[in-house]
Amino acid sequence: MTDIAKTIDAANAETVRRIMSAEPVLIDVIPARDALPNLGERTILHSGPPIGWDRMCGPMRGAVTGIAVFEGWAKDLVEAEAMAERGAFTFEPNHHHDCVGPMTGMTTRGQMLLVVENRSFGNRAYCAINEGLGKVMRFGGNDAEVLDRIRWLTTSLGPALGVALREMGGIPLKPLVARGLGMGDEMHQRNLACSSLLLRLLAPALARTATDTAGLAKNLGFIAANDQFFLNIAMAMGKAMTDPARGIAGSSIVTAMCRNGTDFGIRVSGTGDRWFTAPVEMPKGLYFPGYSEADANPDMGDSAIVETIGLGGFAMGAAPAVVGFIGAGNASEAAVFTRAMGEICVTENPEWTIPAMDYRGVPTGIDIRLVVETGLMPTINTGIAHKKPGVGQVGAGVVRAPKGCFDKALVAFGETMGVG
Amino acid sequence: MTDIAKTIDAANAETVRRIMSAEPVLIDVIPARDALPNLGERTILHSGPPIGWDRMCGPMRGAVTGIAVFEGWAKDLVEAEAMAERGAFTFEPNHHHDCVGPMTGMTTRGQMLLVVENRSFGNRAYCAINEGLGKVMRFGGNDAEVLDRIRWLTTSLGPALGVALREMGGIPLKPLVARGLGMGDEMHQRNLACSSLLLRLLAPALARTATDTAGLAKNLGFIAANDQFFLNIAMAMGKAMTDPARGIAGSSIVTAMCRNGTDFGIRVSGTGDRWFTAPVEMPKGLYFPGYSEADANPDMGDSAIVETIGLGGFAMGAAPAVVGFIGAGNASEAAVFTRAMGEICVTENPEWTIPAMDYRGVPTGIDIRLVVETGLMPTINTGIAHKKPGVGQVGAGVVRAPKGCFDKALVAFGETMGVG
Repeated sequence: MTDIAKTIDAANAETVRRIMSAEPVLIDVIPARDALPNLGERTILHSGPPIGWDRMCGPMRGAVTGIAVFEGWAKDLVEAEAMAERGAFTFEPNHHHDCVGPMTGMTTRGQMLLVVENRSFGNRAYCAINEGLGKVMRFGGNDAEVLDRIRWLTTSLGPALGVALREMGGIPLKPLVARGLGMGDEMHQRNLACSSLLLRLLAPALARTATDTAGLAKNLGFIAANDQFFLNIAMAMGKAMTDPARGIAGSSIVTAMCRNGTDFGIRVSGTGDRWFTAPVEMPKGLYFPGYSEADANPDMGDSAIVETIGLGGFAMGAAPAVVGFIGAGNASEAAVFTRAMGEICVTENPEWTIPAMDYRGVPTGIDIRLVVETGLMPTINTGIAHKKPGVGQVGAGVVRAPKGCFDKALVAFGETMGVG
Repeated sequence: MTDIAKTIDAANAETVRRIMSAEPVLIDVIPARDALPNLGERTILHSGPPIGWDRMCGPMRGAVTGIAVFEGWAKDLVEAEAMAERGAFTFEPNHHHDCVGPMTGMTTRGQMLLVVENRSFGNRAYCAINEGLGKVMRFGGNDAEVLDRIRWLTTSLGPALGVALREMGGIPLKPLVARGLGMGDEMHQRNLACSSLLLRLLAPALARTATDTAGLAKNLGFIAANDQFFLNIAMAMGKAMTDPARGIAGSSIVTAMCRNGTDFGIRVSGTGDRWFTAPVEMPKGLYFPGYSEADANPDMGDSAIVETIGLGGFAMGAAPAVVGFIGAGNASEAAVFTRAMGEICVTENPEWTIPAMDYRGVPTGIDIRLVVETGLMPTINTGIAHKKPGVGQVGAGVVRAPKGCFDKALVAFGETMGVG
């Protein structure tokens, strides 16, 4: 082995050590203005790498106008769109503010955010509360029903969750995810087990801290009706786990993958906070009745942070039932995806194992060298949004990270190592 | 095919049609004295086929004396034992009274019973509420802590569950079990998914109908802390599903399997309510720290009703994580058990499928002819009790139904068909 390869291997070992030694704990739900005091008026955080209004896809534009009305910055969607056109809003990626968001990923001052603290490193990450299924802002929904739901999350469920979590002293997430992997979840397109286990942990604390049983019943009912409730928590966990692994000189490990519906972006530890982007691809999957690929927006969201830590498409072997849901083949072949992702990762996580694969750990630490060398692109399990604003989710599928990101990242990484 | 074989096949088709067309719904929790008005004073229902005090194993004797104190029939365990010795109690199997009970399976007038109604056939089946893990009466525990817990189930949790279930209009169990099979449960030694899904359904209704939040929090906390809470519901479901399949002339399908810690008993549809018994076997499994097979009581409980409907050991392929827990080999080989049980069953249940086996239905309808012909005995996943009264659970494992039951049943079945 050459000296340079030894240097990279040592740096990569440190990167995955940091990722796997994280202790993420869901500790609170607090207003975004308290979590992110630097988040200015009329500032909108979005999913994926940086993008302006001019290049935003339809559902992201729909979400931007909706959240502007929610925040009271515009009186209606028409005014919000005009404001966006004339540059009245500041757009920044969630990833630049310790945040992540699914699909369109809107984060603004007035929302309530889930708080995940990484107790090994002291950092925190944030994500909005999952809105449920159907017509929702993360899929570009922006009508009164969508905004009223976010208001209710902000005034009712969010504060109640915050009180309950503080009373409990938080919920450690690693053991929860470990159990979920033994119960058919991959924590991206299937969060049924973790959502149920989370409610099981939360329900007694919500009851102990409730002020009225009617409000409590509504809060419990909202969580209980949403099989994807845990997704946003898994995402904040992923962000909290990967952030301390950023900026390790000589490391070729991916620390973030995300998409804004136009560009796919990755960050690599050894190249710090620089984004390497390429056009997003179109997911291959199954569509809800009445929709087809002609309606679909390309790949979107910060949710690929869960693949970055070995879950989602990387943990497909744990979730045979998700394979059919996303149209990826036979359920009995779920492990094929996990084995393939093992080819582009430097290790397996011994704390997150897949029983059906005789407790093999999930593949962890995507090495851009291995991605380029094998041509195996990271597999991401994803929801599919309608390409027009205001419609919502139309399907679910599998998408590959585009090779262009990895090619560019490898060149830049080589330069940091003095390899021209 | 001979005429007699055709007759048997047709009868068996009707038997499995009745089992699989059942619509079991958890509708209520009510006092045993209301559910079973014929259940007399000093009558104790127990698990397994009929047995008297003289032949009862240690943990069942321990449970008998405990429940007699709970009911106020004896002032303490010593007096209860003396009463049992002199014949002061009437012992009958749960199965003779529309009931089932795990392990020792005590059912008496003063307890609260889960009510499962089979809406396709109108019959009901009952089971006591699961007490949780550790030192509990079903494993022969009988001290003040055990009795206080049963009192609390009777006065607090049971009534609250009854109110919530009536308010909800009941919980259909078939879809719940179908989801559980996609989440790693086999519904005998692993009920984590179904227990969590059940709480998710119950929590909002418990909140809507709660009178105080402190009591509600305690009720939610009790269910939330017990991964096996669903077992007793699965058992009542099994009884409700198999009872309408009893007494079909010419059917060689098993309608019940149960054990009292001394004898294993089976019933076969074509021979009606007659029991065919043989000595119970010793489970092979894993023991909790400090215990070994030398401490173990042989196989016990009505819980093998879940195997009778294709769950438990028959659905092992759905539950790779349970294979290690019960010491049955490699997790990746879980499907081997299900395939073997498919050899002794006449069909598969299309509503209860195993994703990892490409949605193969669980093997359903144990045919005593196939059991005797193949020599493959039904595989039962079971808890293991200490052989002395008052200790509790010491492990979990796999046990085979004894061949003697099936040999005897086949002879008797042959006689009903005019085959000497």
